[in-house]
Amino acid sequence: MAVIIYHCEMARWEPDGRGRLADAALALYGERGFENTTVAEIAERAGLTERTFFRHFTDKREVLFWGAGALQELFVNAVAEAPEGSSPIDAIAAALEAAGDALQQRGDFPRQRQAIIASSAELRERELIKLATLASALADALRQRGVADPAASLTAEVAIAIFKIGFERWVEESNQRTLPQLLRESLEELKAVTAGG
Amino acid sequence: MAVIIYHCEMARWEPDGRGRLADAALALYGERGFENTTVAEIAERAGLTERTFFRHFTDKREVLFWGAGALQELFVNAVAEAPEGSSPIDAIAAALEAAGDALQQRGDFPRQRQAIIASSAELRERELIKLATLASALADALRQRGVADPAASLTAEVAIAIFKIGFERWVEESNQRTLPQLLRESLEELKAVTAGG
Repeated sequence: MAVIIYHCEMARWEPDGRGRLADAALALYGERGFENTTVAEIAERAGLTERTFFRHFTDKREVLFWGAGALQELFVNAVAEAPEGSSPIDAIAAALEAAGDALQQRGDFPRQRQAIIASSAELRERELIKLATLASALADALRQRGVADPAASLTAEVAIAIFKIGFERWVEESNQRTLPQLLRESLEELKAVTAGG
Repeated sequence: MAVIIYHCEMARWEPDGRGRLADAALALYGERGFENTTVAEIAERAGLTERTFFRHFTDKREVLFWGAGALQELFVNAVAEAPEGSSPIDAIAAALEAAGDALQQRGDFPRQRQAIIASSAELRERELIKLATLASALADALRQRGVADPAASLTAEVAIAIFKIGFERWVEESNQRTLPQLLRESLEELKAVTAGG
């Protein structure tokens, strides 16, 4: 029992193996770099076996990207559930709000993750692909609402632009404003910019 | 001499080895797929040696991406040279116009290239990276004009969104409208979308 309590204090307690492995991986990537960390070390730090690791993740890269599916679902659902008659940009604003709230509640994880992504060309590429996939899914969700192309694709790309820039500012700012605030500001800024021509 | 004339008729004449190699590569990628084409085959089709190929390109992938630098220069110069007092979005409109004109004049090359890029996950990733690099360069060019962040980054991302969507429509449309026309329309559509909230 004492061992378990000790473990709870060493690494933030997560009831599931997946969460413990993700925390351990992120800590190790931060300490010794993504390239220099092995799955064996991640499992050891989490107090689990390599076999358990591979039950949750295909490789050490996936630890950083498994949340992308949930984020996409959140975005897409928010667009789908925006009140009938909402303009495309209002549906996107609702989606940004939902995603911002969710990420804000994940504590330091998104920021730590971002620092690791930024440190590796391979990971930055993977992130770009995930964002492109998210843009496609958002465009589909807008089409489902009856938004025609090119408005659907353009609005989806705009959403990703706002998300990317708002998120970058949040990471740099170290908690002065919340992510939802920064996303709202970025959306307003974008409206001002496009109206300025 | 007769041989040279024959060659001129076989492949569109390009005075430089680089152009001939690029044409040969594109034709082969289209015929047998990017993965299944070797540098030796490209050189042979162009009537040049492998050694000449490697004087111009580091590998067969670079044939598809060496134009990205010129495109970026074109975008960045157009932003830099937009009339003093132009709004960020007007500077971007000028850059899209310049890039659209240049690509429109390249005949079938951009469309053929796009089909090949679309056929390979590896190439799609490389294209995303090039577009992200272009967005960074555009944001820098806007900052040089005194545009503050986040407006500079957001405007640059918007430019890439318009470019991407306008270009995709151009590829699909098979020449009904010109690329500059489609880029202008996409910009107008984006303005309408962001004003609609």
